[in-house]
Amino acid sequence: MPLTGTVRTGWPPVRVNGEGHLLIGQVDAVRLAREHGTPLYVYDEAAIRDRCREFRRAVGEAGTVAYAGKAFLCKAMVRIVEEEGLALDVVSGGELYTALAAGFPPERIVFHGNDKSPAELRTALQVGIGRIVVDNFHEIDLLAGLTEGSARRQPVLIRVAPGIEAHTHEYISTGQQDSKFGFDVATGQALEAARRILATPGLELVGLHCHIGSQIFEVEPYRLAARRLMEVAAAIRRDTGAWLREADVGGGFGVRYLPEDRPPAVAEVIAEIQAELRRCAGEYGLPVPALTVEPGRAIVAEAGYTLYTVGAVKRIPGVRTYVAVDGGMADNPRPALYGAEYTAVVANRADAPPLETVRLVGRYCESGDILIREVALADPRPGDVIAVFTTGAYHYSMASNYNRFPRPAAVLVNGAEVDVIIERETYADLVRQDRVPPRLAARGAGA
Amino acid sequence: MPLTGTVRTGWPPVRVNGEGHLLIGQVDAVRLAREHGTPLYVYDEAAIRDRCREFRRAVGEAGTVAYAGKAFLCKAMVRIVEEEGLALDVVSGGELYTALAAGFPPERIVFHGNDKSPAELRTALQVGIGRIVVDNFHEIDLLAGLTEGSARRQPVLIRVAPGIEAHTHEYISTGQQDSKFGFDVATGQALEAARRILATPGLELVGLHCHIGSQIFEVEPYRLAARRLMEVAAAIRRDTGAWLREADVGGGFGVRYLPEDRPPAVAEVIAEIQAELRRCAGEYGLPVPALTVEPGRAIVAEAGYTLYTVGAVKRIPGVRTYVAVDGGMADNPRPALYGAEYTAVVANRADAPPLETVRLVGRYCESGDILIREVALADPRPGDVIAVFTTGAYHYSMASNYNRFPRPAAVLVNGAEVDVIIERETYADLVRQDRVPPRLAARGAGA
Repeated sequence: MPLTGTVRTGWPPVRVNGEGHLLIGQVDAVRLAREHGTPLYVYDEAAIRDRCREFRRAVGEAGTVAYAGKAFLCKAMVRIVEEEGLALDVVSGGELYTALAAGFPPERIVFHGNDKSPAELRTALQVGIGRIVVDNFHEIDLLAGLTEGSARRQPVLIRVAPGIEAHTHEYISTGQQDSKFGFDVATGQALEAARRILATPGLELVGLHCHIGSQIFEVEPYRLAARRLMEVAAAIRRDTGAWLREADVGGGFGVRYLPEDRPPAVAEVIAEIQAELRRCAGEYGLPVPALTVEPGRAIVAEAGYTLYTVGAVKRIPGVRTYVAVDGGMADNPRPALYGAEYTAVVANRADAPPLETVRLVGRYCESGDILIREVALADPRPGDVIAVFTTGAYHYSMASNYNRFPRPAAVLVNGAEVDVIIERETYADLVRQDRVPPRLAARGAGA
Repeated sequence: MPLTGTVRTGWPPVRVNGEGHLLIGQVDAVRLAREHGTPLYVYDEAAIRDRCREFRRAVGEAGTVAYAGKAFLCKAMVRIVEEEGLALDVVSGGELYTALAAGFPPERIVFHGNDKSPAELRTALQVGIGRIVVDNFHEIDLLAGLTEGSARRQPVLIRVAPGIEAHTHEYISTGQQDSKFGFDVATGQALEAARRILATPGLELVGLHCHIGSQIFEVEPYRLAARRLMEVAAAIRRDTGAWLREADVGGGFGVRYLPEDRPPAVAEVIAEIQAELRRCAGEYGLPVPALTVEPGRAIVAEAGYTLYTVGAVKRIPGVRTYVAVDGGMADNPRPALYGAEYTAVVANRADAPPLETVRLVGRYCESGDILIREVALADPRPGDVIAVFTTGAYHYSMASNYNRFPRPAAVLVNGAEVDVIIERETYADLVRQDRVPPRLAARGAGA
């Protein structure tokens, strides 16, 4: 099949084959939709690996890139992360289970969370997890109990709430003092946490962590965060004599959802963070800590596409045109949750000019089930395949069975190869957990 | 165990046993948490059945109450709806599958949706579904093709967009002209739909449907909706001679989430709707149509509770206290989606005065994971069981595996009896759909 090349330069790059069909890697998106059904999550493996390498190059040999699994995690993704030499952030027993089930080395796993359960912490300690990022005093108490008498000292970082608000949507901004996450710096809780951890024989305090937000397009908040971590490290050094050798500035690196999005280059942001760490180290007379960054969305978002099939096209004269597809808010809750915006093309006419502005909606029984409020498409009709861009992060991971729709499959494209990495759910899967008490059982029905 | 009775009158009614534990039905909520784990969805069967009966009494023998399954559906719920003599609304092939799997009679099922797939429509026709609520011209075309040559005529209703906006949150308001749902009245699309359906031999046009919003606390929008349906019915009668014998005004009946919520009595709202239908019938010289109402939330919301266990309690001096529980936005996305508000008690000290105002948050890695922004609780501590009220609708049905947490179990309380109706997911369930392509398989790992 001839690859006729790029139709649209700029972002998103739209490449088509001789039939005018969108290409993902070297694969025809329309063929994917036909063979695997829709809605379908599609991941471009090369794009994922490129981003992993970009981050690793940026932090250098001394630094660590920990992929934040909450953005997208399944066993195949764990394997890619492992092969690329990244560490892995988990935030639950379920993510830890997934990582271990896929053979990820526990010593490269970092465990986050504002309310880790005793059972999860016990498992993490048992498998020899690399780092636990301690969030609160209750967790220190739990860890003190669980590590009592243990030969191994568990490396931990302290999560601090640095009092920095990155410019982003309220729901996905963190780092401010009024946060459920981390130890407050201003009131001395971070220092107190360091004292308690240092007094706990089973724990080894190795660093500080913060996370200042999501979809950050500026360098300045990262620079401030690095400085704040160094201030706290210096205060801990003065108070306790301990030197914290790791500085983990979290994630939040912005990605492109719309053509006008202009995230800064990863290398540039990370160089600024490292420069600030060196500068602060000089000011405080301390060694330079090793940097850890935790990209999640920045690794997978732009590598992901969602394919849908158009059903009803509703033209309300003088009002607008609604184009309904066979998915929606259950496979992508981000528009309803965050007002998130996207761009899309008609995959089977990706070379046609997008002349009609429509509202792209899902098929869920809810008015808020809108995928894109205003998008220009090429004369959309029933049966067309729509490709939505930048759906790799927080789509599958937040997907539900709302309206009892089975969750979509995910396929991984590697050049011309295609592998299913998440099977589509079936109707039988929807009732798998359902139980009918005998007194309610239908006469003669297989309930 | 002695039942010491009601601690709080008004709403929500808080009844405790001799240990000061919250009672659900006659069952100790703390015992439920201990035996079934948390987070746990708990349904009070008597409360569900009471509401079913209240609605049935209100519509009378001639009317129909169709339970809107999207609010909460599992096989056991289907059985209760069947036993109570209600009809059942489904909005997907998955909901239809669940209903049939639980032995629900297909002739009492109503199929809704703005983008039903050809496969779903085919199944619905094959099983002899009671009603299809036709949403758009594309669907009429599909049904015309699928019913061609069929002996049975499929009863259908036309969904009209009545141009009424009930006072409610934008995301859950429907019924306005600019909607993905239904045929617009003002531009004549509803009338054109009637003409096309009447010209389709395999379809029998029996009525009109509309749905004007959710959480409606006023009678007036329903009265207006009834009048609008009769106007459209009269126009169709004038134009085609056809008489549409069913008027389905949808759902949206408000429930109590907060003590200050004052939904009107169901009987009163429905009496007003029926009075308006009679009035309009008189004005237009038409027979009075049979009324259908479609409560979903109003049947199950207040019958449902969610139990959580408190983990970290974080007191930030001068800022606020965060109480973290072992669930959150994945078992209840409504606060993040709609700004929904709730009330709660400490179930193991339900008789203690709620003197501390705190923020109740979940354990998901996201700042927006807030269950209740401000709630007064009785000195919450790690290990306490929190009961959140009015969580029966759009909680389980919208639940996800975000952060790879298994979805909670649901139990049904019937007096002193307790039955599991939805099993808790396991870690193994989380990776059930995961597949690892051979080229990515870990050396020596069971991927």
